[in-house]
Amino acid sequence: MPTINVQMFEGRTLEQKRAFVKAITEAACTTLGSSPESVDVIITDVKKDNWATGGVLWTDKK
Amino acid sequence: MPTINVQMFEGRTLEQKRAFVKAITEAACTTLGSSPESVDVIITDVKKDNWATGGVLWTDKK
Amino acid sequence: MPTINVQMFEGRTLEQKRAFVKAITEAACTTLGSSPESVDVIITDVKKDNWATGGVLWTDKK
Amino acid sequence: MPTINVQMFEGRTLEQKRAFVKAITEAACTTLGSSPESVDVIITDVKKDNWATGGVLWTDKK
Amino acid sequence: MPTINVQMFEGRTLEQKRAFVKAITEAACTTLGSSPESVDVIITDVKKDNWATGGVLWTDKK
Amino acid sequence: MPTINVQMFEGRTLEQKRAFVKAITEAACTTLGSSPESVDVIITDVKKDNWATGGVLWTDKK
Repeated sequence: MPTINVQMFEGRTLEQKRAFVKAITEAACTTLGSSPESVDVIITDVKKDNWATGGVLWTDKK
Repeated sequence: MPTINVQMFEGRTLEQKRAFVKAITEAACTTLGSSPESVDVIITDVKKDNWATGGVLWTDKK
Repeated sequence: MPTINVQMFEGRTLEQKRAFVKAITEAACTTLGSSPESVDVIITDVKKDNWATGGVLWTDKK
Repeated sequence: MPTINVQMFEGRTLEQKRAFVKAITEAACTTLGSSPESVDVIITDVKKDNWATGGVLWTDKK
Repeated sequence: MPTINVQMFEGRTLEQKRAFVKAITEAACTTLGSSPESVDVIITDVKKDNWATGGVLWTDKK
Repeated sequence: MPTINVQMFEGRTLEQKRAFVKAITEAACTTLGSSPESVDVIITDVKKDNWATGGVLWTDKK
């Protein structure tokens, strides 16, 4: 606890994910007082075919 | 807001998803008064190996 | 299938939710070919204290 | 109802998933009094690149 | 890992939840080979006003 | 995008949540290159009656 689920577009590199989970975890520890080992971050890579805003899939936006 | 997460079996075409997110978004705007740009729809394609009803995976149902 | 999870701000009336789940379900049936009984819609009411966009809680936006 | 979403590391065999969903469903029926057909279990396979504990991706743990 | 999210109707007693999370965790350990301490179960209590099947809220079903 | 869902124990103050969503959003912008306005953070407050680790509800742990 906390458990943090992140949905983002696919295409981030491993290096970006590595930096992201480290920064998110530090943010949780600093502001909530969590211990690092209690923080789980789970990333879901979402294709632009599978995410719409305003009723339009991102794969169709220009 | 709203953010709408949809889990469905994989296999829908892009054309079906396009129609689906458009229809869902219109439904939200009409009934909740949301503005279209505030509606996110995120689809998760689920394999029949990964979904069970009644304790049986759909890949095993006949 | 599909299972549709909706996160929205709290405060919608029962009448709005009733219309919303009916419209969403019809949208899924029409565009995906689902049977109505296979469509679940689960609403989560989110407080403005618990949703942030751009790093600011909605309770703090003016 | 209930709807049970399970996030686990990828790599489980179909046989393991088959046994798992059967056991989970029986556990829900026995302890909650649910009927089997009302229990949905949806598995999400997560890559070790996409799950961090303590700020470190599992792909980087030794 | 695994992390198990359960959505169920509100109204279960603490005793039922206690038995449920114990049984679910044992099921995961037996079938997946997880260690007990690696299994998280998070319950979400859903009101009948907030869950629809077939386009009808459960609060409206007879 | 990204959309960040956080499950944590209830009891955090509004001030803690305010600092948390700000820090999480900055972490996402810095490491992923997201624009702040594209980052949603949604918090779910979980009761200790509703979260188990190792098969034991946190309300029962000492």
